Formats: sequence, structure tokens, C-alpha cells
Amino acid sequence: MGLYVQKYGGSSVADAVCMRRVARRIRDTQAAGNQVVVVVSAMGDTTDELIALAKQVNPEPNEREMDSLMATGEMASSAILTMALHALGVKAISMTGHQAGIRVDGTHLKAKIQTIDPKRIRRHLNQGYVVVVAGFQGTNPRHDIATLGRGGSDTTAVALAAALKADRCQILKDVDGVFTANPRVVTGAHKLTAITYDEMLELASCGAEVLQSRAVEFAKNYGVVLEVVSSFHRKPGTLVQEETKDMEKIIIRGIAADKNQAKATLLGVPDTPGVAARIFKACAGANVNVDMIVQNVSAEGITDISFTVPKDELARTKRAIEPLVKQVRASGLHYDEDIAKVSLVGVGMKSHSGVAFKMFDELARNKINIEMISTSEIKISVAIRAKHADRAVRVLHRAFGMDKGKAKAKPAAKKAPAKKSAAKKTTPKKAPAKKAAAKTE
Amino acid sequence: MGLYVQKYGGSSVADAVCMRRVARRIRDTQAAGNQVVVVVSAMGDTTDELIALAKQVNPEPNEREMDSLMATGEMASSAILTMALHALGVKAISMTGHQAGIRVDGTHLKAKIQTIDPKRIRRHLNQGYVVVVAGFQGTNPRHDIATLGRGGSDTTAVALAAALKADRCQILKDVDGVFTANPRVVTGAHKLTAITYDEMLELASCGAEVLQSRAVEFAKNYGVVLEVVSSFHRKPGTLVQEETKDMEKIIIRGIAADKNQAKATLLGVPDTPGVAARIFKACAGANVNVDMIVQNVSAEGITDISFTVPKDELARTKRAIEPLVKQVRASGLHYDEDIAKVSLVGVGMKSHSGVAFKMFDELARNKINIEMISTSEIKISVAIRAKHADRAVRVLHRAFGMDKGKAKAKPAAKKAPAKKSAAKKTTPKKAPAKKAAAKTE
Repeated sequence: MGLYVQKYGGSSVADAVCMRRVARRIRDTQAAGNQVVVVVSAMGDTTDELIALAKQVNPEPNEREMDSLMATGEMASSAILTMALHALGVKAISMTGHQAGIRVDGTHLKAKIQTIDPKRIRRHLNQGYVVVVAGFQGTNPRHDIATLGRGGSDTTAVALAAALKADRCQILKDVDGVFTANPRVVTGAHKLTAITYDEMLELASCGAEVLQSRAVEFAKNYGVVLEVVSSFHRKPGTLVQEETKDMEKIIIRGIAADKNQAKATLLGVPDTPGVAARIFKACAGANVNVDMIVQNVSAEGITDISFTVPKDELARTKRAIEPLVKQVRASGLHYDEDIAKVSLVGVGMKSHSGVAFKMFDELARNKINIEMISTSEIKISVAIRAKHADRAVRVLHRAFGMDKGKAKAKPAAKKAPAKKSAAKKTTPKKAPAKKAAAKTE
Repeated sequence: MGLYVQKYGGSSVADAVCMRRVARRIRDTQAAGNQVVVVVSAMGDTTDELIALAKQVNPEPNEREMDSLMATGEMASSAILTMALHALGVKAISMTGHQAGIRVDGTHLKAKIQTIDPKRIRRHLNQGYVVVVAGFQGTNPRHDIATLGRGGSDTTAVALAAALKADRCQILKDVDGVFTANPRVVTGAHKLTAITYDEMLELASCGAEVLQSRAVEFAKNYGVVLEVVSSFHRKPGTLVQEETKDMEKIIIRGIAADKNQAKATLLGVPDTPGVAARIFKACAGANVNVDMIVQNVSAEGITDISFTVPKDELARTKRAIEPLVKQVRASGLHYDEDIAKVSLVGVGMKSHSGVAFKMFDELARNKINIEMISTSEIKISVAIRAKHADRAVRVLHRAFGMDKGKAKAKPAAKKAPAKKSAAKKTTPKKAPAKKAAAKTE
């Protein structure tokens, strides 16, 4: 008995057969005595098809019009799913983002939810309806439709769960939950029963595609209990929740590899104050998300500044940085799209030292060269050659005792001094000095 | 210089190439110094595809959900067309029916426009924008999307033209205008320069598919000057307007054939008062549009009652009528789907007699049997075997001097007593007594 928000992604509702399967699951959730709000993505590849169509008439389509266009995908799928529920005898009603009371800010293509007025949803829930909400969209103060960006339906679901004080927000996916590593890469990877919001956030920003960061942040801020479950069977999934005492016992919760990285290097920059600031101000102005930053000063006061950005932001980065080469008197500019970021994530790191050393050691013993490093309180990331990424994940997964069937890693020394954490992203730093190695069985 | 409303149908915007062509025409209309509001249908077969998808999950989809689903087709095409305009450097903005201020009543699938608040459209027009409105839809008092029924985009265009006091409402189609008869059937058929609202209404309800009756009624009620023009070239089309003195000189404006007719006959009904009323009350209750009605009383006080309905309403008609067979003590019930209605339409009929005689005479001489007749002030319709329909149209087109290159028909006697007209539809009557034949050259 409770109020469930269930979010179904595009592949779960790709065609009529999928729609009917999803409808049966929703029916059963309601029949078990729950109220159900459903958030649905566009069917299958609809969004991509709409984007392709737009590009046929205009290579740089206007953002407001793109939003109006793309939002139709979710509107259509919410209506179809509602019809499928009716076919099962379930009382159901579809709602656009607007009808669901979702108000967003004025930014097109990546709007942020400002308020949700759940009155109409509540009224229909109380009348026994399943309410099927078109994900990914809301109305802005100009009465225009704005979308929340890729994966925005996850955010819609979490925001609705928060507004409705739902007991649980289930994200139904074509995977069984959150895994210790990508099971397509690591045969020993296994599903996690639970993960903390912070760990999930780190994994999401490190290339794990299971949940959108914004949705997890939203869940964390409003204490929404998230569950990632399979849309294909009905086994329990992975709970994303507040940290509990037990959860710290596991040092590494998950390992992620992000191959969507590119590195830019400004060569031979005279090491004067303010140079880095100018570079990263230009990046920020171009809406580029800089991730890792490394700066090495040589004896001659000449430095190379390297940083990573998502591959699809490299063109923007080039436009932003190239005019600066002369200004900062750099000797050149170099790009590298052949890198990957591999990250270890776990709240247990906060109280266990030696993780970084063990990671670097394992990679070195496997002849994988580390090019950049960045860390947070619960994460260590390294940039390596892209071709080594999968092997690195496998090696680390085994080394930290995470392979299926193996016992969990135990720390060598409890309550070692907490690793000094650097703020996530845009943090120029060297390898953190870790002395004690975490022992694994 | 003026304010134009242009409506483009689905086949005019079927793909990116079509969209770009339409965009160029809109640009040129604006460049000629006009303000332009565009109403657009869903691209190509989108609406049919959405309906087919809905039927896959539910054979009898809920009407509210169908409206939400179908409305997405026009939303998408309005955004795409707007992007195509941007690509030409034209300032343009898309609007959903809701954003365009179109409020409709609560009837789903065939909503009626109640009010239009054109404030937002006007504001953007004054700022130099082309405003592209999603046709076929509006918001009802429950804040739900409701559609206007098939061809509803024509109605949207006319209603917007009325609300904006536009100088002209152009309906762009894949035909050159309104023809004297279907040019695919009659080689001598030619495009009309102008036609009255009433003639257009009669032709539309007699099977000419060029314009929707509701749109024409709306135009008539609000004095909107309509123009049917080709979307493929830029020659003048056909003006649909108030009757002018000149227009009465043409006796027959057009000939239409409607093959979407079915006939139902109640056999051997005792001729007691109220029987017809019961039958047609049942039809009205089942939302069946009865067209022609014929009742023949025999000497024995036994009558056969026949009436025609659109073919796709025959199933509903059967459900409504079959329970009545016993109640009115009819001896049987007979259906005939093999009929067609052929109609002559022209405001000139009002002042010229002999049209009916000439029509019946021509058909008889060509061995085409007339099964039913109905008339209005400016129309004569006959029901005949479906297989004769095309031939009947050709014969009549020639007989009334309408073939291309021929001189117009001249009346034999001016100001002959006006034909007594019967109300259109549901009017049981025999052949109108016409004495004088209209002479043609």
C-alpha cells in the first residue's frame, strides 16, 4: 500500500507489444493496493527521428521549436499507454507536462523544473485513476513548452515523487539495476542491492548511464527513495538512498568507464597568475563542462595545461580556446580524443585509505599508463588510453574483490585519516598521496 | 498588403522537401508586404499512422486520449515548418492550438470552436513574425486537448481569419481550385473562378471533397473570403464568397457524385402517423446523418420507407433501426450499399426552372434509373446505382453545357417561378414538379 511513481523509458514502450506489457505491470502495481503515477518517455527512437527530421529542414533548429517538436513524442506515448491501460480495464488518464502542473524555467532544451502543482494528479489518483504523465517537459513562464534535456523523464519522475510525497520512485529500465561495473565488460560484475545518492551521482558523472545525475540530485535533495528495476522481470532492483552505517563497510561500490572524453592541452604556457582562470572562463562561457584538469610547471616557468571535456563538446571547446592561444602566449594547442576515464566510487573511501595507491599500483602492474587523475571524497578517476579502458575496469574489479562470488573487500586499517577530498570537476591536482594500501582478500 | 491566413494540408507538408517549398511560398507572401498566419495539418499520413498505432493497443480507444494523441501530429508539423522558415531567414514562431488562444467545447474528436483570443498571435504579427498554428485542435474547458474532426484544420484557418479579421483565408491544396466536376471523371471539367458559400456547402455535402462543410459555414457566418488555391503553383484559385448578381447567370455551378452512400429500406410498414418520426428519432439518437428519404404509400395503406446514410454510419444505423422493425410492424429490412448520389448545384436554380426536368430526362435517355430524389433551393440530388455514377456526371456535365470551351448555359425563360425548395436532408418528398426545361446551347 503506497503511492508509487513509475518511470518507463523509450525502449520499454517502443511498440504496441511493449506498451501492453508495461500496462500489465502498472495494472498489477495498482491491484496490489497502490496508487500509481506513471512517467513515460517517447516511444523507442522517436526523439532521435524528430531531431533528424528537424535537421533536414534546418541544420541549426531554433531551441524553442525543438522543444515544441520533441515534447510531442512523450505526449503521444502517454496517450498510447493510457489506451493500453484502458484495454486492461484500468481507469487511467494521460497528462501533458503542462496538465500535470509542471512549471519550468525559461531555458529551452535543458529547462529546470521550478514548481509542480500536483492538484490535478491528486484529484485523479483519489478517483482511482492511474495518471500517465508525459515525461521530459513542462511549461515555462512564457507559456511555451520546454524540455528537460536528455534523460529528463527520470527527473520528471523524481520531481513528481517529491511533489506527491510518493513512497517510492521506480525507474524501470532494460537493466536489472545498478551494477558494480558494466556487466557487458566485466563478467564478474553483480547487481547492487543499494547505493547512496552520492555514489550514484559520482557513477552517473563518470559514465555509468543507468540514471541521470540531475534526477539523482533531485532525489537526494528531496529524500525521494529511488529504485532502479528491470522492466522485463519483477525481481528487486537497486535502491538509491541515504547512506546507512552498513554501507560504509563496502569501500568500492562501483567502477565506471567513460569513453566519451576528449583532452585538450595548451602547450608551453608561461606560468603567470590568471592564465588558468582565463582558459576556464572561456570554457564556461562556451557552456563546456570541463572535467579533469592537470597542470605541470617545469623548472623554466613554462607549463602545459591539459583538461578533459565530453567529446561532443570538443567543437565548442576549440572555438572557445583557440583565440586564447596567442593571448596567453602558449606555444601550441593539442587535442586527443583517444582517452577514457576510469573511476572508482564508494562512500567507504571516506574512512579507508590506500584506495588510490592500490588503484595506481594495479594499473601500473598491468602496464596501463595514467595520464590524469582527479578525486573527490568518494571517487578516484584516472584518464588513460581509451583502448585500455575495459581491461582497466576488469583488473580493478578483480583487485578490489568485487567479482561475483568473492568476499567483500575488507580494509587493512580502520579509521585511517580520511582522504582529503578535492571538489569534483575543474580541480587541478596531482595524484593524492595515499600511503596505506587497502587489502583485499 | 493585407493579413493572410494560409492553410496547408498534410500532403503539402508531407516531408522535408515539401516543407521547404511551403516555406518559400510563405516567405514570398510575407515579402509581398503581407502579414501571414499559417495553419498546418499533420505531415502526410501521420494522423492515420497514429490512429493505427492506437488501435494496436486498444480497438476502441478513448476519445480524450485519441485527441491528445492526434493533436501531436499538427504540433510537430507546425514546429518543423517554423524551422524551415527560419532556414530562409524568416522570423517565425509556432503555436499549438492552446497557445493560439483557440478554445473549444467539451466534445472530443469533433469539438467546436467556441472562442479565439488572438492576442498572442497579433503581438507576434506586429513584431514581424509569421505565426504557424497547429491546426485541428484547441483546449476545452477541462484544460484538455480536443480536436475538430477530420479536415478540422480548414476550420481552424477560417476561424482564425474571422478572429483576426484577415483579408483572405487561402486553403492550399493539391488541386487548382473548385471544379465544375471531378476532373478525373469529366475531361471537360474546368476550374471555377468563384463560387458562393451556399453552393460550396451543397457541393461539400454532396461528395465534393475540396472543402469541409464546417469551414465553409464558418466562413459564411463571418464573411471570411476563402480562396482554394494550388499548393504546387501560384495561379489564382477559386474564390468562395457571398453571392453576387453575376453569379446567378450560371444555372449549374458544379456537379458532384457521392459514392459513400448506403440505403436502408423498411419494407411493408403500416402507414400510421408517427412511424417516420420514430425511425428518424432512433437514427438521430445513434448520431446517424440521414440524407435522402423516400416514402411510397400503396393503396393498401402499407408503405416502404427508404433513406440514405453515409456508408461508414451504416453499422450504427443497423443497430438503431433493427429493434424498431417489430415495433412499427414492418415486414422486413433491406440494405443497399451499391448506390451513389449525384447532385447538381447552382444558385442560378433559384430563378431558373426546368433544371430538374432536364436532369431526369437526360438520365432517362441514358438509361440511368433514378431511385430517390432530394432537392434544396440550389441543389437537386438523385440516388442511382453506384456503377452509373461517373457516367451520370459526364452526361449531365455535357447536357448542361459545362464542358470546357463551351458557352455557358442560358436559361430559356427568365424569372420563371422560383422552384419551391425543400429543406435539405431528412425531407421525404417526391420529384419536384418542374415544367419548363432549361435550354442549353
